[in-house]
Amino acid sequence: MVDQLPPTPFLAIDLPVLQANIDRVAAWADERGLRLRPHVKTHKSPEIAHMQTDAGDQGLGVATVGEAEVFAQSGFDDLFIAYPLWVDDLRRRRLTRLAERATIRVGFDSLEAAERLVGTGVTALVEVDSGHHRSGVAPTEAGPLAAAASALGLEVLGAFTFPGHSYAPDGREAAARHEAAALATAAASLREAGIEPRVLSGGSTPSLAATGDGLTETRPGVYVFNDAQQWELGSCTPEEVALTCHATVVSHAGGRLVLDSGSKVLGADRAAWASGFGRLLDHPDARIVVLSEHHAVVDLAGEALPALGSTVRVVPNHACNAVNLVDEYVVLADGRLEGRWAVAARGMNS
Amino acid sequence: MVDQLPPTPFLAIDLPVLQANIDRVAAWADERGLRLRPHVKTHKSPEIAHMQTDAGDQGLGVATVGEAEVFAQSGFDDLFIAYPLWVDDLRRRRLTRLAERATIRVGFDSLEAAERLVGTGVTALVEVDSGHHRSGVAPTEAGPLAAAASALGLEVLGAFTFPGHSYAPDGREAAARHEAAALATAAASLREAGIEPRVLSGGSTPSLAATGDGLTETRPGVYVFNDAQQWELGSCTPEEVALTCHATVVSHAGGRLVLDSGSKVLGADRAAWASGFGRLLDHPDARIVVLSEHHAVVDLAGEALPALGSTVRVVPNHACNAVNLVDEYVVLADGRLEGRWAVAARGMNS
Repeated sequence: MVDQLPPTPFLAIDLPVLQANIDRVAAWADERGLRLRPHVKTHKSPEIAHMQTDAGDQGLGVATVGEAEVFAQSGFDDLFIAYPLWVDDLRRRRLTRLAERATIRVGFDSLEAAERLVGTGVTALVEVDSGHHRSGVAPTEAGPLAAAASALGLEVLGAFTFPGHSYAPDGREAAARHEAAALATAAASLREAGIEPRVLSGGSTPSLAATGDGLTETRPGVYVFNDAQQWELGSCTPEEVALTCHATVVSHAGGRLVLDSGSKVLGADRAAWASGFGRLLDHPDARIVVLSEHHAVVDLAGEALPALGSTVRVVPNHACNAVNLVDEYVVLADGRLEGRWAVAARGMNS
Repeated sequence: MVDQLPPTPFLAIDLPVLQANIDRVAAWADERGLRLRPHVKTHKSPEIAHMQTDAGDQGLGVATVGEAEVFAQSGFDDLFIAYPLWVDDLRRRRLTRLAERATIRVGFDSLEAAERLVGTGVTALVEVDSGHHRSGVAPTEAGPLAAAASALGLEVLGAFTFPGHSYAPDGREAAARHEAAALATAAASLREAGIEPRVLSGGSTPSLAATGDGLTETRPGVYVFNDAQQWELGSCTPEEVALTCHATVVSHAGGRLVLDSGSKVLGADRAAWASGFGRLLDHPDARIVVLSEHHAVVDLAGEALPALGSTVRVVPNHACNAVNLVDEYVVLADGRLEGRWAVAARGMNS
């Protein structure tokens, strides 16, 4: 079996864990009466998106026009570009073509951006800021902005937010409360402006379990794989990690473990609260303390060093950025090679 | 002209600046009597490597067998894999084929790794640690390790080091001193063990200007492009930055500038000493204060916000990791589109 695997470092999916993650969250959303629209920027894989829709998920979230094009080509016909797009002439042509073959929703947070969506065939959701302070208007501004956009001819379906401040120690419950409150305020503002919100969309993996009332849909992404960030935030257990980087021990320099998995396969993400540049799935106390492009130096917390040439499983800090570095997944089930899946939307940044 | 450009975000090369960077460092190495072996992991581009060898550079440094394969296919016949490779059966076959058509040097820092290089047709350099504490043996161990490797049948040409602790404020001169001292100690250790060192190889872009005596070659990489890290360390000026990410202003949310260039095109690198997640070339006081996968939030230090839909030039923190996220460069000269070059070795992590 081993010689069927590609050379390290490579990203491997644990298929039973992936399936369990998909099924668990789909069942949770069903119980809650929430539409689950998974954000596929995490995996960029039509195979995985099919597993999600087979489990009952409805529609997909994407981040860019390029991602929408890839998933539309794979037959997905309900796509929400959850991003405040700026539509120049080229993007306008692409968006118009997309809207001819799929239901396309797009985010906006300014009237200037909304104006450019008019006539493309897409519908739109106004983005509101629920506390992450990245993009989006204040929830109280949702109605006036949506009404002005409607007056220009854009069909506004409702509001969306990303409670990304859930990515902080002890931030998950508060972010979920802010998400629900922001969407409730946005809904009231929309109604006051004469627009009945049909969609109130939120979602992030850390805040998912604490999702409050009032949302019609949620768009988590990372939950399919989980990663070291989710592990450290407490939003998954190590048994729920479905994506690892298989890495080779190349050196014992300085009495430490040096792996061939650097930032060019793991990504360089390290939140201020993270305990290192990644974790080892089978050595929970270990931390990646130095990360170069092709070296990960691991502090094993006193454990004996795995032998030179042996393989270890690294959990990237941030699955989405690790995935975007490789062309394919190696799919494993109980150690057996089940196939290779393309990261079909890798690099689709525009 | 503008409509010939791809949609943002994309990585653009300023060709005259690139040429000037290549020429300046080539002239410096020539004056110093140093062999310049540029590390092409930074650009992964045969076109740029040809510019470097046209300027007089001798041989290339690469990080992986896969990078060596790409550059050998492009006709480069002198390649140093400056990495402590662990050669399993598959890599042994690839390395043996490579060595049949090019001169291949490989690094090692253990006898176990050296043993696996015997019979592949490559020559080797022992890696020594000059203070970066990543991989490599202590310089005093270079001779005994090289002698043991020689006894197994491996031809050892000398020693190499990467003074990566030059990546720190005020660390450049000290790292260069440590580099020279470590290679001098390694050379003495090799001679004592009966091996006359023919190659003593160092190099990093921050330490380059302070390079001490005793090296035979240097392997800087980033100097071709420079980046926000080099700018902040003082090892380049903004006028010497040849690589930028062209990004669109998508939002003015919260009175700040939001760009469509996130970590999926800039990389998530942020050293502890960095002032942000990247800089704007035309707004030197601006800092990227929040970076998501498709959003860069910029603090413009009181400057008026560039208009929605306008394009700004972002300087990534770490050029090598940004380049590894895209399939091609957009090559510009005085604003004219000169062509597109493939990032031919993108993703070649093994």
